[in-house]
Amino acid sequence: MAERTDQPVITAALLVIGDEILSGRTKDKNIGYIAEFLTEIGIDLGEVRVVSDIEEDIVAAVNALRHRYTHVLTTGGIGPTHDDITADSIAKAFGVSIDVDPRAVALLRERIPDDQLNEARLRMARIPEGADLIENSVSKAPGFSIGNVHVMAGVPTIMQAMLDALAERLPTGRKMLSRSLEAGLKEGMVAGPLGEVQAAFPDVSMGSYPRFEEGIGYTTTLVLRSRDTGRLEEAAAAVEAMLETLRAGTRSS
Amino acid sequence: MAERTDQPVITAALLVIGDEILSGRTKDKNIGYIAEFLTEIGIDLGEVRVVSDIEEDIVAAVNALRHRYTHVLTTGGIGPTHDDITADSIAKAFGVSIDVDPRAVALLRERIPDDQLNEARLRMARIPEGADLIENSVSKAPGFSIGNVHVMAGVPTIMQAMLDALAERLPTGRKMLSRSLEAGLKEGMVAGPLGEVQAAFPDVSMGSYPRFEEGIGYTTTLVLRSRDTGRLEEAAAAVEAMLETLRAGTRSS
Repeated sequence: MAERTDQPVITAALLVIGDEILSGRTKDKNIGYIAEFLTEIGIDLGEVRVVSDIEEDIVAAVNALRHRYTHVLTTGGIGPTHDDITADSIAKAFGVSIDVDPRAVALLRERIPDDQLNEARLRMARIPEGADLIENSVSKAPGFSIGNVHVMAGVPTIMQAMLDALAERLPTGRKMLSRSLEAGLKEGMVAGPLGEVQAAFPDVSMGSYPRFEEGIGYTTTLVLRSRDTGRLEEAAAAVEAMLETLRAGTRSS
Repeated sequence: MAERTDQPVITAALLVIGDEILSGRTKDKNIGYIAEFLTEIGIDLGEVRVVSDIEEDIVAAVNALRHRYTHVLTTGGIGPTHDDITADSIAKAFGVSIDVDPRAVALLRERIPDDQLNEARLRMARIPEGADLIENSVSKAPGFSIGNVHVMAGVPTIMQAMLDALAERLPTGRKMLSRSLEAGLKEGMVAGPLGEVQAAFPDVSMGSYPRFEEGIGYTTTLVLRSRDTGRLEEAAAAVEAMLETLRAGTRSS
């Protein structure tokens, strides 16, 4: 694959933390949002894991992912209750201490009156040593970044605000470009010829997504992705020519 | 934790396979559905991973998960195109051969006329040696089970039909029971006392889920989970008593 090296490829993994996702009680809304957000700013999401609120599972996942990807984003487990163990687990993964952080307490005080700033709420100010805070414009309690791991809330509106704040300081990569083509044909007809075009353009990734549409029947969307505009357009022209040949064959038969 | 051993705890992991989920182009609808389905039939979903259409990543994930959980379910990557590499990757993970399977071809023939059963469509009949087929009542092309790994389609309607077929032959576990309680209080007020009740009931898992509701303001749902009806009811009574004390304190202040 011909990769230009003037702008590096930046990768990320996402770790979703929470029993409620694994029990099906809460339907995750963050994976799709973060996937789209990262693609948009030129960061490749390479892997997602969902783990439960068990310290050793969180530590193992963080350590497996942070050595493999440029960045690791986490969601969930930074609230005030006993099952919110993400911050402590991250500190353990990095082998650093954790304590109530005066910067985080100051942020909480902007929202919570002193007489309501109880022990549980102060849990939200526990930040591993050496971490930078991630601003939370919705409810103040911050996320944090330590090394290449960025810890955010699980509540979607809060996560989204944190992701906006985080994105401002993340170096972004060369953006992945994409082109969608409507085949208007069943996937089983397109698949063989598409494989041949793919072989001719190994540097352009080609995906095929079948669906059933009322009034049209089975059809297929083809998605081409590349970081190089020129190669993307060449590949799109080749796929379009291939589709035209197939459509002509369908009409004449 | 007091676990009765007359019915074993059965665990599962889910492996979602597909570049389109990681790019954000397709929003996954299978994780939440499968999580709820498994909980309902008494199987604990312990972990989810989403990986891209890269053989070594699929093989590594399957081998990491199948030794750790009773079952591994996979979704995606069993269509007719060049990027559908799940069946071949699973065969590699198990170190068995893979070829077009006459049983699967017979199923495809029920739906696809002989003159349209091209090489690409026959890819959908590639099944690892020794696997059992999983019926697909929607579009015929089957999934399969090999060892404790169960391979299903990514299209939600087809995946759901396969899951129904699969569930008939999966041994199920002792069902996890749950009770939801509306706190009517902010999470930061409930968190401390809830931690104390949790400490008294280490065998009942207690989750806390804050939300903002129009007209009510911030409130919190508490979810208690246990496999033992008696313990669940005792814990629920203890939490309800704790909440009543907190509410009385709020009213009098």
